[in-house]
Amino acid sequence: MAGTTTTTTNTATGNTNPTANLPPLLDLTIDNITPNTIRINSQASDARLKYLMARLVTHLHDFARETRLSSDEWMAALQFLISCGKICSDVRNEFILLSDVLGLSLLVDNINHPTLPGGTEGSVLGPFHTHDAPVLPNGSSMTSDPEGEPMLALCTVKDLKGNALPGVTIDIWETDSSGHYDVQHADRDAPSERCIMRSDDEGRFWFKGIKPVSYPIPHDGPVGKLLERLNRHPWRPAHVHFKFEKDGWDPLVTALYLKGDPYESSDAVFGVKKSLVVELGKVDKATAEAYGVKEGSWLLKHDFVLSTQKETEELRDRLAVQELEKLGLNMKLVDHLPVPELD
Amino acid sequence: MAGTTTTTTNTATGNTNPTANLPPLLDLTIDNITPNTIRINSQASDARLKYLMARLVTHLHDFARETRLSSDEWMAALQFLISCGKICSDVRNEFILLSDVLGLSLLVDNINHPTLPGGTEGSVLGPFHTHDAPVLPNGSSMTSDPEGEPMLALCTVKDLKGNALPGVTIDIWETDSSGHYDVQHADRDAPSERCIMRSDDEGRFWFKGIKPVSYPIPHDGPVGKLLERLNRHPWRPAHVHFKFEKDGWDPLVTALYLKGDPYESSDAVFGVKKSLVVELGKVDKATAEAYGVKEGSWLLKHDFVLSTQKETEELRDRLAVQELEKLGLNMKLVDHLPVPELD
Repeated sequence: MAGTTTTTTNTATGNTNPTANLPPLLDLTIDNITPNTIRINSQASDARLKYLMARLVTHLHDFARETRLSSDEWMAALQFLISCGKICSDVRNEFILLSDVLGLSLLVDNINHPTLPGGTEGSVLGPFHTHDAPVLPNGSSMTSDPEGEPMLALCTVKDLKGNALPGVTIDIWETDSSGHYDVQHADRDAPSERCIMRSDDEGRFWFKGIKPVSYPIPHDGPVGKLLERLNRHPWRPAHVHFKFEKDGWDPLVTALYLKGDPYESSDAVFGVKKSLVVELGKVDKATAEAYGVKEGSWLLKHDFVLSTQKETEELRDRLAVQELEKLGLNMKLVDHLPVPELD
Repeated sequence: MAGTTTTTTNTATGNTNPTANLPPLLDLTIDNITPNTIRINSQASDARLKYLMARLVTHLHDFARETRLSSDEWMAALQFLISCGKICSDVRNEFILLSDVLGLSLLVDNINHPTLPGGTEGSVLGPFHTHDAPVLPNGSSMTSDPEGEPMLALCTVKDLKGNALPGVTIDIWETDSSGHYDVQHADRDAPSERCIMRSDDEGRFWFKGIKPVSYPIPHDGPVGKLLERLNRHPWRPAHVHFKFEKDGWDPLVTALYLKGDPYESSDAVFGVKKSLVVELGKVDKATAEAYGVKEGSWLLKHDFVLSTQKETEELRDRLAVQELEKLGLNMKLVDHLPVPELD
């Protein structure tokens, strides 16, 4: 009947769904399933979600079409995802590992935190950051590993113009000398080899840790099995993680890698940047006395450089617009995130 | 040194990895992460796995680049996958549901089981098929639901030429009158509303069940939340599932849908095909007496048609070659699955 709009009431969720306004979903095939799935998902009111779903469905379907994905492969993939989910716990995130070894984490980090000239480059967060690290005063020791080789770290954090940045919160974490983060020990009763510091008035922070060692990412789960089938090793070169936060400044997740590590150029999670590879020195007598460590201990010195939130945001927006144009996509940014330009 | 090949020994897995033969993985960026991830994955010896990974990585990365995926969105996606994994159990597969509502299940089924002219079309398997259904002789009742409206099903299974197919194993399952499969009841102690039958010498099989009802797919989990955010209803039109198996014949997973169901043309998982929509009749006096049911009960009559494994395989291979050519991909089929043609 002309002008009549029928709606379908969803008694299960209480929603009234105007699916009756959509073309019928019948006889879907290899060739028409994609536009139809996108169309039914386009009932979402959130333009960004709608765009994300449209691109997700397109890529997922194209993947199946290009590979002629077999039913067995499809089921194996679902089982793989289930097993990733099952092994996740408060202290293990297999999906971050999966994202890491597929290069997605690196990519998302680079998209979101482009580096301004002179700024410190980012690196992957990895799955071992926790929220229970103790806040320690500068100069403290964050290690409780007597087997580790003592290392003194003397660092600064500055802005792009070279001004000291005081009051920056710095999360620092590394493995113990066996190559395990504290959370990987079943008997962990307190945080270890991790701490939170604050930069002083001159932008300095310093702490006692241990010389990092190379270690394999957890490879006793589904991601480890995948790496094995790909003939890839699970090793990461020795590194210390750092996470910088200060209101108004772009949060920086990065790491410093030891020069000469056997996995320096084959990191299983693609995190290494040349600018983040450092050579350890040795603590001299004066430094040893000043910081209360043994002469000849390992010495890590590094100057970190942050950009402001605004600086990074402007660069990110500019790159987004530029790259989407290159891809031939007609987009606008809403809340700094692309959605299709429909007008 | 000329002619010297260095290899990296992976002490964790015992593998010897020739990563030293690969270009260094350093300074990876938005622009070079994809080819580098594909290159390191190409150490796999299985050509099919290598191709699947290359396409997966390409689509995953393109998705992130085209959407400029934010760190928050990335983390939300990982959390979504974790919660899907966590809700999975022996009797619930949230990833099949996810694949279903994204149209992937329909697509994979169509790719793998193309229908020959005259053959019965397939439909989605869904997550509620079990392996513990009782084998019942023809004419049995598979229902234990006194609230359901009794339905007699009289079916045949034939080949493309109209010959009866005896000895076909037929898995049959449907919900009870409340719209729940047996496995959805926490107190399930035995299979119900499901059975396995065998076609007789004339290709016939018949059973007593109940008139199927429309029902929402489980929407108390992450997939339900996603549908809600997409303003999509979770309903499936009333249907009975069938799964046919016989050596030498292409396994057929399908379902029959009731004509006139309010969700007939908006199935949440895209399963409905016009050729699978049936109108129920009523049992007449003679039939009632012959099958020991009440006159006036619902009557489902359907003739299913199977194709041989060889017939389907040839069609699948032909379509694969044809579609990959259309996509401009230079592929060959190995074990009926595409891998790149490198020679």
